[in-house]
Amino acid sequence: MEHAQNLSADPHCFDTAEREAFYKTVFTRRDVRGQFLSTEIPDDVLSRVLLASHYAPSVGFMQPWNFVVIRSQDTKQKVHSLFQTAHQEAAEMFEEKRRDTYRNLKLEGILEAPVNICLTCDKQRAGPVVIGRTHAPEMDLYSSVCAVQNLWLAARSEGLGFGWVSILDHRKLKQVLNIPSHVVPVAYICLGYVSKFHDRPELQTAGWRPRLPVQDILNFESYGAGAEALENHQLVENMQTRQKQLEEEGYQGSFAST
Amino acid sequence: MEHAQNLSADPHCFDTAEREAFYKTVFTRRDVRGQFLSTEIPDDVLSRVLLASHYAPSVGFMQPWNFVVIRSQDTKQKVHSLFQTAHQEAAEMFEEKRRDTYRNLKLEGILEAPVNICLTCDKQRAGPVVIGRTHAPEMDLYSSVCAVQNLWLAARSEGLGFGWVSILDHRKLKQVLNIPSHVVPVAYICLGYVSKFHDRPELQTAGWRPRLPVQDILNFESYGAGAEALENHQLVENMQTRQKQLEEEGYQGSFAST
Repeated sequence: MEHAQNLSADPHCFDTAEREAFYKTVFTRRDVRGQFLSTEIPDDVLSRVLLASHYAPSVGFMQPWNFVVIRSQDTKQKVHSLFQTAHQEAAEMFEEKRRDTYRNLKLEGILEAPVNICLTCDKQRAGPVVIGRTHAPEMDLYSSVCAVQNLWLAARSEGLGFGWVSILDHRKLKQVLNIPSHVVPVAYICLGYVSKFHDRPELQTAGWRPRLPVQDILNFESYGAGAEALENHQLVENMQTRQKQLEEEGYQGSFAST
Repeated sequence: MEHAQNLSADPHCFDTAEREAFYKTVFTRRDVRGQFLSTEIPDDVLSRVLLASHYAPSVGFMQPWNFVVIRSQDTKQKVHSLFQTAHQEAAEMFEEKRRDTYRNLKLEGILEAPVNICLTCDKQRAGPVVIGRTHAPEMDLYSSVCAVQNLWLAARSEGLGFGWVSILDHRKLKQVLNIPSHVVPVAYICLGYVSKFHDRPELQTAGWRPRLPVQDILNFESYGAGAEALENHQLVENMQTRQKQLEEEGYQGSFAST
């Protein structure tokens, strides 16, 4: 058990309860649209989730993000009106049989959430040549998305609901928030305490799409291949068993110990 | 204390120790390149981190990701050779005074890490019209990045090092892994147990760039504005104090309780 020895010597080693707490954030995280309370978020709590976001990984350590914290009803109204326009345009794009379902989905909590945050990416933050971005110019945007996901999970651990609103004309959003041309709005976030967290994603409950079975997305050595091979059977079966339990019983607090 | 009552009634409410465990994953997570051990990753552990990734958020619940798990030395060699070519090209892009520093950085662990994973995004996964992607076509890629970040943090909680290799010609990577044209390789990941986790990001230690002070990236209502306003002073100061402690003492295990 070479690695176990090495890890127990590491002061940053995680025990089972700590790993479980991490998995709890992952499996109980939801995209919240409809359950926001008006309760204010204390500075201590907002400070923690924003710093968790700021300590996300970034390509070449460029930290391309800014956080535009929005509390004014006036700003929220302007963004909400952008949402309404885009949402109407979007409805027309769905085939008729899904259009009514789409229109009945609650897709944002802009006005109800006490705090909105626009998380951006400054493509010029670290000059023209950035370690790791030389062959993948999108890596700066991806770094900002990592910061979004850190914020999302931190929010969940603090009991804060988080909703990502992407049905917006981003060009107009930049005008509303005075975002310069070289800066990209990556995520528009609604944040606040909630009356409840749903047990599963709302689109799953609504029958929009199911959670994909692992054997459909797990490949070995080559895209789309290998899930049925004998040498991969144990891993695939292990994941299938875990997924079955998550889907049938929901997260039960014993993911890390089984 | 309306929200506290609501949350304590919620079976998914987090206590301080659980929140701390989450923050521990965030603040001790590293981009690992040089400390991989050859120790095999047990199926149980790999299963957990892959499922944590699969339960990431995705636009319209489309779950656009696949995981190509790579263990064969032959595949790793092919990808490593793509890295070497791209790395040489990249070095030429830096100004001369930084070029030597760049060349001396260890930027990947493709051959040493027992497992490599290519995490992809299938842009056709849920048909042409996807909820939330109608006005932001990049949302499917962003969803796959959320899955990357879940995997990264899960790996950290399991004591696994994780490194994101982006210095690759992605067109050639698609050929090596037989990735179809409508599928985008989002992240090439090295995964394995490690001899140690560094206390801070290697690029920070090398003096390449500092961690940005929060007042430079925190704005209110409008991009680039508001950090000096009186009504935001408490939040900004709270974050500055926390950041100072993190930078001077490192993560000390008392982030959630202070």
